[in-house]
Amino acid sequence: MELLYTGKTKNVFKLEDGHYLLKFKDDVTGENGVFDPGANTVGLTIDGAGLAGLRLTSYFYSKLNEQGVPTHYVDANFDDATMTVKPATVFGKGLEVICRFKAVGSFLRRYGAYVQEGQDLDSFVEVTIKDDDRLDPPISEDALAMLNLLTHEEYAILKQRTIEISTFVGAELAKKGLTLYDIKLEFGRDAQTNEILLIDEISGGNMRAYKGEQYIEPLELEKMMLAE
Amino acid sequence: MELLYTGKTKNVFKLEDGHYLLKFKDDVTGENGVFDPGANTVGLTIDGAGLAGLRLTSYFYSKLNEQGVPTHYVDANFDDATMTVKPATVFGKGLEVICRFKAVGSFLRRYGAYVQEGQDLDSFVEVTIKDDDRLDPPISEDALAMLNLLTHEEYAILKQRTIEISTFVGAELAKKGLTLYDIKLEFGRDAQTNEILLIDEISGGNMRAYKGEQYIEPLELEKMMLAE
Repeated sequence: MELLYTGKTKNVFKLEDGHYLLKFKDDVTGENGVFDPGANTVGLTIDGAGLAGLRLTSYFYSKLNEQGVPTHYVDANFDDATMTVKPATVFGKGLEVICRFKAVGSFLRRYGAYVQEGQDLDSFVEVTIKDDDRLDPPISEDALAMLNLLTHEEYAILKQRTIEISTFVGAELAKKGLTLYDIKLEFGRDAQTNEILLIDEISGGNMRAYKGEQYIEPLELEKMMLAE
Repeated sequence: MELLYTGKTKNVFKLEDGHYLLKFKDDVTGENGVFDPGANTVGLTIDGAGLAGLRLTSYFYSKLNEQGVPTHYVDANFDDATMTVKPATVFGKGLEVICRFKAVGSFLRRYGAYVQEGQDLDSFVEVTIKDDDRLDPPISEDALAMLNLLTHEEYAILKQRTIEISTFVGAELAKKGLTLYDIKLEFGRDAQTNEILLIDEISGGNMRAYKGEQYIEPLELEKMMLAE
């Protein structure tokens, strides 16, 4: 099993059947020991964080696959904290697609002159490029097209899928009395068919969830979501 | 004559006939004594900078008015370094619309992973919000619409006018052997008719011009452009 990539929160291996294996680590993004889904550095290590992230990811992906949403998910092995996925290529060096239901985080930092903290944002979609050195800058549809990262047609697909998937995740959280403030998704192209797929994890580590006024930490969120 | 607003490079007065009077100052934006059209602070004061900026602004606006492009320009008085304009309201607290022909400045800082310095950008348009505290963040068409700053229809007008005006300015520079790298325009709504107007100045202070590989300072640019 060949190690292809060492990520901040996951390692990626190539399997002999052509699939990839994602090994979830106990490292989570943040700064100075405080979790922040928007951070570019590993902020802390929490025992069991990898498995909890995988379990929630597997929960959402299984349901999305059932609904016919194209994803890279094949299956998960909780004993090894691994997930088998279809190989996919990312757009450029990777894009993050954010869906916002409430104004917090970098959106609030940028547009605080026009929004109140926590204001409703009606499933607002924006894209950032993955670039740690440049602090993941936001990028417009026109710039994505000009830089040959996404065509306008692909952008429309990404935006529509992002709203659909994020709204589904928000509805799942709502069943447990939780509110989804924002979520960060990743997409790629199926290495075989070129179809646009949802990739990476969907866990506490890439969303902000609240119960009333109370922010819910990723590990706590995963417990609440997976409780019988 | 009532002083309405004290800007970084201009003061704005209200005239008795309802028009506004812009008084150009000798202050230019920059940092640590170096001119930077993208800067938010007054970096230096240059004798004659205000009048030179007004003369070039008047040159471009006269031609744009002749071509039927809707602008706020009425006339200019070089003795007083003032320009008379129609009153206009800005979008929110003001937007800047940037047209880029070459990758430099903040575009290069954001997207340097995908572009080379000086690479052609094909009249790429982007919008930033005027917000000194938040360093004039870029904002997407969707965010402008969601925050009620511009409708999608208004965005389309702004984008098309920006390309048209910037291409015209670029062609004027080309007549003098100069290349326009990028330009920052401002638009507002006619206080009477609500029509979208080009507002503010069009001078060396809001564009980057090069002669070959050599960047041309605003005052030098104004001399070169207005030389017989």
